[in-house]
Amino acid sequence: MRMIDLIEKKRDGESLSKSEINFIIKSYVSGDIPDYQMSAWAMAVYFRGMSLEETTELTLAMAQSGDQLDLSALGRRSVDKHSTGGVGDKTTLLLGPMVAACGVPMAKMSGRGLGHTGGTIDKLSAVPGFRAELTQEEFLAQVKKIGLSVIAQTGNLVPADKLLYALRDVTATVSSIPLIASSVMSKKIAAGAQGIVLDVKYGSGAFMKTVEEARLLAKTMANIGKALGRRTIAVLSNMNQPLGRAVGNSLEILEAADALQGKGPEDLMKVSLELGAWMLVAGDAVPNAGGGKEVLRQSVASGAAWNKFLSFLTEQGGDAGAVADRRLRVAPCNLPLLAPDTGYVQLVDAQKIGILAMVLGAGRVTKDSPIDLGAGVVLTRKAGEWAKAGEPLMQLYSSNQEMLAEGLKLAQNLVKVDSVAPKLPPLIEEVIQ
Amino acid sequence: MRMIDLIEKKRDGESLSKSEINFIIKSYVSGDIPDYQMSAWAMAVYFRGMSLEETTELTLAMAQSGDQLDLSALGRRSVDKHSTGGVGDKTTLLLGPMVAACGVPMAKMSGRGLGHTGGTIDKLSAVPGFRAELTQEEFLAQVKKIGLSVIAQTGNLVPADKLLYALRDVTATVSSIPLIASSVMSKKIAAGAQGIVLDVKYGSGAFMKTVEEARLLAKTMANIGKALGRRTIAVLSNMNQPLGRAVGNSLEILEAADALQGKGPEDLMKVSLELGAWMLVAGDAVPNAGGGKEVLRQSVASGAAWNKFLSFLTEQGGDAGAVADRRLRVAPCNLPLLAPDTGYVQLVDAQKIGILAMVLGAGRVTKDSPIDLGAGVVLTRKAGEWAKAGEPLMQLYSSNQEMLAEGLKLAQNLVKVDSVAPKLPPLIEEVIQ
Repeated sequence: MRMIDLIEKKRDGESLSKSEINFIIKSYVSGDIPDYQMSAWAMAVYFRGMSLEETTELTLAMAQSGDQLDLSALGRRSVDKHSTGGVGDKTTLLLGPMVAACGVPMAKMSGRGLGHTGGTIDKLSAVPGFRAELTQEEFLAQVKKIGLSVIAQTGNLVPADKLLYALRDVTATVSSIPLIASSVMSKKIAAGAQGIVLDVKYGSGAFMKTVEEARLLAKTMANIGKALGRRTIAVLSNMNQPLGRAVGNSLEILEAADALQGKGPEDLMKVSLELGAWMLVAGDAVPNAGGGKEVLRQSVASGAAWNKFLSFLTEQGGDAGAVADRRLRVAPCNLPLLAPDTGYVQLVDAQKIGILAMVLGAGRVTKDSPIDLGAGVVLTRKAGEWAKAGEPLMQLYSSNQEMLAEGLKLAQNLVKVDSVAPKLPPLIEEVIQ
Repeated sequence: MRMIDLIEKKRDGESLSKSEINFIIKSYVSGDIPDYQMSAWAMAVYFRGMSLEETTELTLAMAQSGDQLDLSALGRRSVDKHSTGGVGDKTTLLLGPMVAACGVPMAKMSGRGLGHTGGTIDKLSAVPGFRAELTQEEFLAQVKKIGLSVIAQTGNLVPADKLLYALRDVTATVSSIPLIASSVMSKKIAAGAQGIVLDVKYGSGAFMKTVEEARLLAKTMANIGKALGRRTIAVLSNMNQPLGRAVGNSLEILEAADALQGKGPEDLMKVSLELGAWMLVAGDAVPNAGGGKEVLRQSVASGAAWNKFLSFLTEQGGDAGAVADRRLRVAPCNLPLLAPDTGYVQLVDAQKIGILAMVLGAGRVTKDSPIDLGAGVVLTRKAGEWAKAGEPLMQLYSSNQEMLAEGLKLAQNLVKVDSVAPKLPPLIEEVIQ
């Protein structure tokens, strides 16, 4: 088998077989296929696409390119959750404790964030003492003990994806549905959960800008999961404005803590309950999503989810008391943005709020940039809410006065107030099983 | 400027500007753009194509990536000729002497062949003593003295094409019209001739299998030449069967010598007169192609072309007497293929004859393979000619008995004889100015 023939085959719109796809991934990881052939192939895939069979084989070949977790020792079905990413998306922080409190274990490995704000691991780093790096034994032991652990991606998990993603990133071959779907799903497959719930976001603050693209990606990933024997459910949710009110690492931990104590913003709760309910379905804990939502609400109302969150932080070395007493470090410089007029707040563009948070120091510009864990934005008013002229629309936080001033300048053009309430799209668009 | 943005731009079907194309070529040659970005870009070009303006800028940027010959010292318009390649194509050996005998100089740099038989330089190497490597001064002095020199490509001519072609060759991005056209034309532009005649072949033995592809390539190259101020004419010619009767290096030199003495096969003469006439037009020596053919016929009839060939060989150290006396080394083992029936010889597939010649030792499998200069095939009968059962259809030559036996086995399935004469396509399809 020669890579040039396989590039040509894909270039000409033909399908690649299981053994051809295995050859490509194995030879690429071993260094026998050079980057310049792989990138030409990726561009051919960009133009020609891949069938579901090809995409599934690609996913499996990548999942098998490195270590694979065996979660069978947990003794019951565990579930994993993945979000395609958005602004203010702290659902993992809520879902882990809520779902675990309902008896379904979550052993989650998470990447660090690149972009507007940090990833889940960055957010958790805002808790003093929190350890994101556990050994595989510690990780599994903790899940067995309390049903929940969230750690940074570790070991040699899906090396094929690491290599291929880095290459796609510099060759304009990222935005290909089969390549995105296989990248996400290979990591979920290798991480070992029997149930997978995908939060596929669309809109200004999401990677997928249109609902059609998001639906295609969601269906592709759900089908891959099914083909590989994992119960997979994808939820299409809107990301035109940030989820919840807080954007920024410490700020989001505090909002998650509020939510787990029954004081969460409506939109954040709605998305979390939807995702969580399907996680319980995928974990065989409830027969349907409606029942799942009810059980999850009870887990919050009873304090079980909140207690699970505190014990999760404690188990991983984090200072749970600092979270409970709201003693997390928030950036010392802060300023409100005041409403210029009285009226309904119009759409608060998620992407622009993301950029604002990054300007304030909450995001990572390059892979090795430091993050200001205390920086960010709290949206005092969200789209559709009423504000009087002079009332705060949002509060900006930064550790740096100049960045704060720059952020305020940027923020002034972000929010409009009008006498007519804005029309908002449904938060949950569709559930794809 | 960042390469990833330019890949994305081309991927999305946009046009690249002159400065963007210059950036790509300069940065690739300097090593600042890695192969893996260049191959992704080439694949995007494969799918999206390039406008004439882009292709012209790419040609110019490549031509300017290394040394460029200045032929103005010759004192009059010189012409160059390029063939997209075929089986038994020895037209350069005829055209150089014929055109030079008519007063139009040809200073030609030629590549070594890879494939069925050698290139022009390999063929000339069959003449004992012939030197294909002259200094630039020797090269130009010889053209000034006798109007003709043919040498191996020398110095740092179009390094961008060397790099890009090698990359395309292993990334399935060869067969892209703008990339082929700019590769050919950049070398012609850098080689300095004011007039360029292109022999664009189509058919089984050619790189372009269909006349439509060949026409598109021909038009693209002609338009590039015009846009860059060179008089450029493209001739579309058929390559379903070999040109002339001889295929193989020594054998083709001997056939060219016959042709220059007025005993050439009809098809070879027809193509050579057409190409040569346009070379005289491009060199401002005659007003039209009809007049050009007449002058060229006279150059053969008078012996001027033949004498020019002999002095050309002598000037470059070759033993002209060995050619005149037919003392070139021809492979010692030879066998005829006999006609199984009586009738008209059907089409003798050029590609298959090319492969047969390679099996006999006449071609190069890899860049560094040795060539058996004496090996090859002579088609005693060509398509449409009459043969009695038992008469020779072709003669096979090899220095190796085993290769000869293998060749004969292969040859037996190549030629069919039938009571009905085959319908042959026109040899010259179209002239594109």
